Amino acid sequence: MVTSTTDAQFSDSKTVISVDVMGGDNGAVSVVDGMAKSSGINPDIRFIAHGDGEELKRLIDRRSVLRDRVVIKHAAKVIDMHTRPSQVMRNGEGTSMWSALGSIRDREASVAVSCGNTGALMGLSMIRLRRTPGIKRPAIAILWPSLNLQGFNVMLDVGADIRADAHDLKVFALMGVSYARNGLGLNRPRIGLLNVGTENHKGRPELHEANDMITADARTNDFEYVGFVEGGDIPSDRVDVIVTDGFTGNVALKTGEGTALLVGTRMRQAFEYSPLSRIASLLAYTSLRRMRHRIDPRRVNGGVFLGLNGTVIKSHGAADATGVSAAIKLAFQLAEQGFTERLAARVASGIQNSQDEYPAQADEAANT
Amino acid sequence: MVTSTTDAQFSDSKTVISVDVMGGDNGAVSVVDGMAKSSGINPDIRFIAHGDGEELKRLIDRRSVLRDRVVIKHAAKVIDMHTRPSQVMRNGEGTSMWSALGSIRDREASVAVSCGNTGALMGLSMIRLRRTPGIKRPAIAILWPSLNLQGFNVMLDVGADIRADAHDLKVFALMGVSYARNGLGLNRPRIGLLNVGTENHKGRPELHEANDMITADARTNDFEYVGFVEGGDIPSDRVDVIVTDGFTGNVALKTGEGTALLVGTRMRQAFEYSPLSRIASLLAYTSLRRMRHRIDPRRVNGGVFLGLNGTVIKSHGAADATGVSAAIKLAFQLAEQGFTERLAARVASGIQNSQDEYPAQADEAANT
Repeated sequence: MVTSTTDAQFSDSKTVISVDVMGGDNGAVSVVDGMAKSSGINPDIRFIAHGDGEELKRLIDRRSVLRDRVVIKHAAKVIDMHTRPSQVMRNGEGTSMWSALGSIRDREASVAVSCGNTGALMGLSMIRLRRTPGIKRPAIAILWPSLNLQGFNVMLDVGADIRADAHDLKVFALMGVSYARNGLGLNRPRIGLLNVGTENHKGRPELHEANDMITADARTNDFEYVGFVEGGDIPSDRVDVIVTDGFTGNVALKTGEGTALLVGTRMRQAFEYSPLSRIASLLAYTSLRRMRHRIDPRRVNGGVFLGLNGTVIKSHGAADATGVSAAIKLAFQLAEQGFTERLAARVASGIQNSQDEYPAQADEAANT
Repeated sequence: MVTSTTDAQFSDSKTVISVDVMGGDNGAVSVVDGMAKSSGINPDIRFIAHGDGEELKRLIDRRSVLRDRVVIKHAAKVIDMHTRPSQVMRNGEGTSMWSALGSIRDREASVAVSCGNTGALMGLSMIRLRRTPGIKRPAIAILWPSLNLQGFNVMLDVGADIRADAHDLKVFALMGVSYARNGLGLNRPRIGLLNVGTENHKGRPELHEANDMITADARTNDFEYVGFVEGGDIPSDRVDVIVTDGFTGNVALKTGEGTALLVGTRMRQAFEYSPLSRIASLLAYTSLRRMRHRIDPRRVNGGVFLGLNGTVIKSHGAADATGVSAAIKLAFQLAEQGFTERLAARVASGIQNSQDEYPAQADEAANT
């Protein structure tokens, strides 16, 4: 029998994650495997799983570690990777994604995880959860392997929208501060604004305006603003949070992934070159695996949608069990910390503070 | 004695490269070392060297391989890396950069090479050489290590301007075709337009318009248009030329460099981890060096300024002798092929063709 209650409750007061099990490239199996993996590591997680009821029941029943830890909600429809966002807006109801977001809206769960279509997920999230007061454009934040002490930087927006004006960038900075605190445990994160140079005269007009606004904010919001940063600083230890518009952020993210792939391919070819290099690769295996682990994107799988009344995590469409489990781990951590409420409070206070301060001190601030 | 003739001529009819010897991070020594290295490999290159006459004479006289192959033009002033472009425009005259471009304008040399400030070099190039007819925005094209057969893709613009409209992007595509032919020897290069997704509805309006225009051009201009590409495709074998605006291109380029640096650092750390891994690194040394060579950015040092009446190559500011020599090699190759004239002819014919064709077939083309 499929559990299909509309008021899913667990008898124990554990942290509940809402999971859209359908819509990823690898189907429901990888997602359920990821849930099982997370459940094995952290027995305190509970799930509401959304998707085809019969299929989910079959997959979940096979994994004893998930017993009594999952409530299934049947949703007959699935949004595939190639559906246009505009079509999703009209026909989203009844899909597993719609249902997963409903569990957040109805406060059955704190955080939702989906491997589905990013544009569809953002569109439906805006409809079902609505934006946090004061936020015009939500953003997607990701963790980026870096030379930092914590091993990762935050970058936002990486593709919620293709545009961002100065006010949006300023709000991204505030949201980034909140995420760096709750996601990375940094007390006083360093924020940088992505540009084509670090000098004040470089770049587009909206970046100059945002530079002034964030400089003013930094004084009242307990973060450090390092000013403009360049593409080369993204994986560096110069900053903890990189702020940019969704077009530039998306291109940068994918360029970084592509470059890492190129280096990996060339390395494999170099080690396959001769019998001697093949022997060397056996000896180097442990070291190379250690390196690969430190920059493995699956370990930090999960773009977080910021600026909505509820936290949504977009897992990579092609995520395997390890990737899905990483996204669930992040979801659990943010849920435990009451991240949604903290972020809303920070943005509200940041906007309030800067309305007091801005623009009186902005020109002065720009020259410091 | 310093040679300081205004009509520098070599008695033999060799290819002459104009070199701005000053203004790089490592001073004149690295640049002269690079010239000597090139001269050792290719005895057919002749140089006009611009900079402090006394210093240049001293440096050049020390290298016998440069004997009778260099004419020195004295220029007392140097543009440093931190001068604002606007200041350069007012005070550029009398600098080594100004002088190096003068040799192109006066047809004493075919191609100029400089390690100086990019913004200043582009600004002075536009003043001294002027734009090719039909080109509103010149672009900077670089070679990017890739999984292609030729090992490199072309990307433009990587920072001549922070803006580009649909017409500019279309012209970038035509210039990219010309550069791929003459710089990489590709007969029928594949062109891609950088976006946040490959679907037709993704991205900014000017990208949709440019997509239509380039689709129409491809039919009459003997190149293949693969449509939208993503950041991950830049180092791939899906395309040969990536077209984008200078803001996005600059961020992508630096992000790629930063990512490669991160991977390299993590690899070094992994091999320094234990005595055993240190032994493994000795055995892996040849393989790693082979890999590093294939993706070494110094091998393809040189951003080429396209769209001016003359070809200018911007070498990396921190280039060593190997880097400078790579830029000179590229300069020689382009000079030998009459690249400036070929590019101008291609753009003129491309614009002519598309004026005949566009917009009649554009809407149809957009849907193919």
